[in-house]
Amino acid sequence: MRFIDLNADLGEGFGDYRIADDASLMSVISSANIACGFHAGDASIMAQSVARAKEKGIDLGAHVGFPDLLGFGRRRMQIDTATLANYVIYQLGALAAFARLADYPLTHMSFHGALGNMAAEDEAMAMPLLRAVQAFDPELIISTTAGNAVERCARELGMTVACTLLADRAYHADGMLVSRLKPGAVIHDPQQVRARVRQWLQEGTLTSIEGERIPMPISSILLHGDTEGAVALAREIRQEIEDTPGCEIRPISRQPLNKSID
Amino acid sequence: MRFIDLNADLGEGFGDYRIADDASLMSVISSANIACGFHAGDASIMAQSVARAKEKGIDLGAHVGFPDLLGFGRRRMQIDTATLANYVIYQLGALAAFARLADYPLTHMSFHGALGNMAAEDEAMAMPLLRAVQAFDPELIISTTAGNAVERCARELGMTVACTLLADRAYHADGMLVSRLKPGAVIHDPQQVRARVRQWLQEGTLTSIEGERIPMPISSILLHGDTEGAVALAREIRQEIEDTPGCEIRPISRQPLNKSID
Amino acid sequence: MRFIDLNADLGEGFGDYRIADDASLMSVISSANIACGFHAGDASIMAQSVARAKEKGIDLGAHVGFPDLLGFGRRRMQIDTATLANYVIYQLGALAAFARLADYPLTHMSFHGALGNMAAEDEAMAMPLLRAVQAFDPELIISTTAGNAVERCARELGMTVACTLLADRAYHADGMLVSRLKPGAVIHDPQQVRARVRQWLQEGTLTSIEGERIPMPISSILLHGDTEGAVALAREIRQEIEDTPGCEIRPISRQPLNKSID
Amino acid sequence: MRFIDLNADLGEGFGDYRIADDASLMSVISSANIACGFHAGDASIMAQSVARAKEKGIDLGAHVGFPDLLGFGRRRMQIDTATLANYVIYQLGALAAFARLADYPLTHMSFHGALGNMAAEDEAMAMPLLRAVQAFDPELIISTTAGNAVERCARELGMTVACTLLADRAYHADGMLVSRLKPGAVIHDPQQVRARVRQWLQEGTLTSIEGERIPMPISSILLHGDTEGAVALAREIRQEIEDTPGCEIRPISRQPLNKSID
Repeated sequence: MRFIDLNADLGEGFGDYRIADDASLMSVISSANIACGFHAGDASIMAQSVARAKEKGIDLGAHVGFPDLLGFGRRRMQIDTATLANYVIYQLGALAAFARLADYPLTHMSFHGALGNMAAEDEAMAMPLLRAVQAFDPELIISTTAGNAVERCARELGMTVACTLLADRAYHADGMLVSRLKPGAVIHDPQQVRARVRQWLQEGTLTSIEGERIPMPISSILLHGDTEGAVALAREIRQEIEDTPGCEIRPISRQPLNKSID
Repeated sequence: MRFIDLNADLGEGFGDYRIADDASLMSVISSANIACGFHAGDASIMAQSVARAKEKGIDLGAHVGFPDLLGFGRRRMQIDTATLANYVIYQLGALAAFARLADYPLTHMSFHGALGNMAAEDEAMAMPLLRAVQAFDPELIISTTAGNAVERCARELGMTVACTLLADRAYHADGMLVSRLKPGAVIHDPQQVRARVRQWLQEGTLTSIEGERIPMPISSILLHGDTEGAVALAREIRQEIEDTPGCEIRPISRQPLNKSID
Repeated sequence: MRFIDLNADLGEGFGDYRIADDASLMSVISSANIACGFHAGDASIMAQSVARAKEKGIDLGAHVGFPDLLGFGRRRMQIDTATLANYVIYQLGALAAFARLADYPLTHMSFHGALGNMAAEDEAMAMPLLRAVQAFDPELIISTTAGNAVERCARELGMTVACTLLADRAYHADGMLVSRLKPGAVIHDPQQVRARVRQWLQEGTLTSIEGERIPMPISSILLHGDTEGAVALAREIRQEIEDTPGCEIRPISRQPLNKSID
Repeated sequence: MRFIDLNADLGEGFGDYRIADDASLMSVISSANIACGFHAGDASIMAQSVARAKEKGIDLGAHVGFPDLLGFGRRRMQIDTATLANYVIYQLGALAAFARLADYPLTHMSFHGALGNMAAEDEAMAMPLLRAVQAFDPELIISTTAGNAVERCARELGMTVACTLLADRAYHADGMLVSRLKPGAVIHDPQQVRARVRQWLQEGTLTSIEGERIPMPISSILLHGDTEGAVALAREIRQEIEDTPGCEIRPISRQPLNKSID
C-alpha cells in the first residue's frame, strides 16, 4: 500500500482579502498549511481555517513566513537567524492557540516563500529555525521539498520529515527544483502534470528536466487553489490517486514516516 | 499577613523602539504584563521579556490590545466581539509559545488601553473575550481594576481575578476610576502616591475623590516605568511595602486569591 | 442637458491581493476614487491605477481612510482630528505624487468607510479634515453623499462639492441614507436599482423608503466592482444613461458644478 | 569661503515611539532628513518635523527607506526596482504634501539604511530609483556618501548631488566607507572624530584607514542624535566649524554645488 498526502496552502487572505478558493480546496486535500499572520493570514481567518480542518478531519499545519504582507512573504529579507527563530515561534504559537481552542492537534509546519527558499539553501539558517520549532513542539512534522537544507537539518535533529512533490514544477536529476527563472521550470499543461503524478504513483519516480527517471521519496503532493483551473487540476490529481490500485490518500500525520531516506 | 503584588506593563517596544526602562523595572516588580505584538511588542522583545521574567522568578502575563501600533492601542476601535476574541487568542498564543520555549508558566492576562477601557464598561464585550481566554487556558488569572465589567464577568465565569490598584489615580466612592478628563484624576505628587499606598497597606482602604475612606480589595499595585521619575517612584512604593510589618510582596499567582469579593 | 458622472472605488487591493475587477470597471466609469495605502492600496497599485485613469481619460480622485488594512477601513476608530488631518494629508500627498509623475491631474477626493461615516455625522470632525484638504489643494472637488456634514462643511469652506448617489441604497425622505442595519437599506434587485436610476434621470428624484418622491441634486452615481454581478449592473446603469435622451456621462471635473444646492 | 552643511536623520519615531532627541538636534543642524513612514516616521511626526525645519529655516529632505518598520529599514529586502521606485515616489509625495501645507520647500532626499546600502552598491538599482526621483522633482538634491553608485547615477542624470561625510566612520583610500564588519570602521572617540572634521575643514582631506591623506569633496557632515553623547558631539562639531576661519555652516540648498566632481 502506498500512502500519499495531498496538501495545500490555505488561509492566505487578510482582512477582507482572499486569495484561493479555500472552501473548494478543503474537499480535495488531506492536509492544510495555514498562514499565520506574517506574510498572510489573520486571527479570524486562522480560526476559521482551523475549524474547517477539524470539520474535514485533515492535518493542520503552520505555514510560517517573513513579516512582509506587502510582498506576500515572497521577497528575500536579510534577518539574523535569532530574530527569525523568534518570528517562527510567534507564528507557531498563534496558530497553536486556535488549535488548542478547537481541541484539534497541530501536526506539521513548513516555511513559506522566500523564507522557505532561503532556509532550503542554507543549513546555517535552517538549523536554528528548526531547533526553535523542535523546542516548541518536538512532534511537529517538517514538511519540505526533498533534498534541501531543511530536510537535511530536520533529519539531523531527529525530527519527522514529510517530503512534498511540487507536481507542476520541473526537477533536476539530483532531485532539486529547477529555478523558476529557467524555461520549463513550471509545467502548465494539466495533462502533463497528471501524467507526472501517475508515473510517480506507479513507480515512485519522476522524469527530470534532463530526461532521467529519478526516484522521488515523497509523502505528499502540493496542490494550488488560487485559480479556478488550479482547483480543477487538484480534483483531477485526487481522482488519479483514487483510481490507482494500491494507493490511498492519507494525511502525513497518519502515514508511517521514516526519519531517514531509504 | 497581607500579600501584595507589584506589576508593570513591559515589553512595550517594537523593533528598535523602546518605551520604558524594562531592565530597571524588572528589579522592582513581582509580575510583568507583556505586550504581544498588536499595540506594542514584537517576537524578539517578547522572547527577551519572558527570559527576564523567568530569571527574576516573577509572574508572566499577557497584555493584549487592539491591532493599532500607530496609536499604541489607546484609540477605541469598533470591532465585533467575535473578531476581537480571535485577536485575543492570537496574542495569548504567541506569548504562550515563548513561555513554552522557556519552560516557564504564563500566569495571568489583562486588557490594554482602549480595549481594556471598552471591556471594563461593557459586559457584552467583556464576556465573550473572557470566555475565549478561559477556553484557551482556564487557569489564567484575570488582572483588572476592581468593580468593572471585566471583574464581574470573570467572576461569573468562575475565573480567578486579581484586582489592581492604580496608585496614582483617583477613585470615586463606588470604587470606580475617576476619568482622566476630570481634574484631580491623576495624582502627580510622589509623596501623595506613597501616602495612599501606605494607607492601603495599613487599613486596606483608599480615600476617594469625594473624601470617603473606601475599602479596596486589591491584590496588586500597577507601577509605571516610562519615565525616570516613574522608576524611582516604583522603587519607593516597593520600599514602603517592605517597611510595613505584616506585608509581603508576592506575585499574584502565589497569593491566596478569592474568586468572590468578601 | 443633464450630466452625470459614474464613479467607483478602485485600487483597493494590497500587495498580491485584489478586491474588485478594476480593469472591467475602468471601461464603465468616468471617475475613479483610488485607495491611498491606509485602508487599502499600495504604491504599485496606486501607480497602476493612475496610469489606467489617464489612459481612459477619466477623473482621478483620492479615497482616504483609516489606517486599518485589517478592517479595510470599515471600523470606527477614535482618533483626534489633528492626527486624522495629518493622515488625510499623507494619503493625498502620496497619490498626488503618482499623478504628478503621470502628469495627470488629481481632481477630487472622498472619505472611505468608517472615516466617511464619522465625518458625515459630525461637523467637528468634517471641518478640520476638509480645511486640511483645502490647504493641500483648494481646487480638489469633495465627493460625498448629499445632505451630510461633509457636504455642509465643504460648502461653508467654499469648496466644490459633487454629491454622489448610492443607487443600491435606500434613502429617507430627508435625503439621508437608511442605515445598513435596517431592513430594506440595500436594494439587491438589479432591475429595481436600474429603475431608480431611470427615475432619477427622467425627473431628478428618488423614491424614499417612506414612499415619497424626493429631489436628489446629485452629480455622480457610485458603482461597485467587487462581484461579477456588480460589474454587469454597472454596465447596465451606464447603458441606461446612454439610452436616455438629454443625458450624458461626464466626469465631475468637467461638469458645471454649483457650490450651493439650488 | 568653505561652506559646510550639517545634516541629521530626524522624525524617526512612530506613534508614541521616539528614537533621537530631535528638538536638541534641530538647533545644531542646517538640514534635516525626515523619515517618511516606511522604515520610521508617521504622518503626525512628519507634520511636526516639517514645522520645526521651517521654524529653524533649515533644509528639509526626504529620507526614504524599505517598508520594514520592524527592522527600522536596516534589513536588506529583495524587491524589484519598479516596485521600489513606486515606494520611493509614495514616500516623497507624502512628505511633499506636508511641505506644501507648510509652504516650505522640499530641498533634497536620501536613501535610508539597507535601501541606501543596496543602491550605493548597484547602479542597476540606483538608476531607476533616481530616475523616479527626478521625474517627481528634478530640482531635488541627492544626498549620499561620495564615490558610490548613487552619486554616479545622479550625476549621470544631471541631478545635483551633495556628498556627505560620515565623520565617525573610517574610509578607504579610494574614498569608500570601511564596512562596519571590519575593525576600526566606526570611530568612537569624540576627540578623534573632531580632529577628523578639523583636518577636513583645514585642508579638505581625510586620512584613510590605510593611512593616506585623501581629498574628500563633500558638502555636508552627517550628525547623529540617538544618544546623549551623540548630541554633545554634534554640538562640538558645530563649534569646530564656527571656530574655523573661512568656514561657514550653510544648508546644501544654499551652497554653490557642482554637478561634477572636480
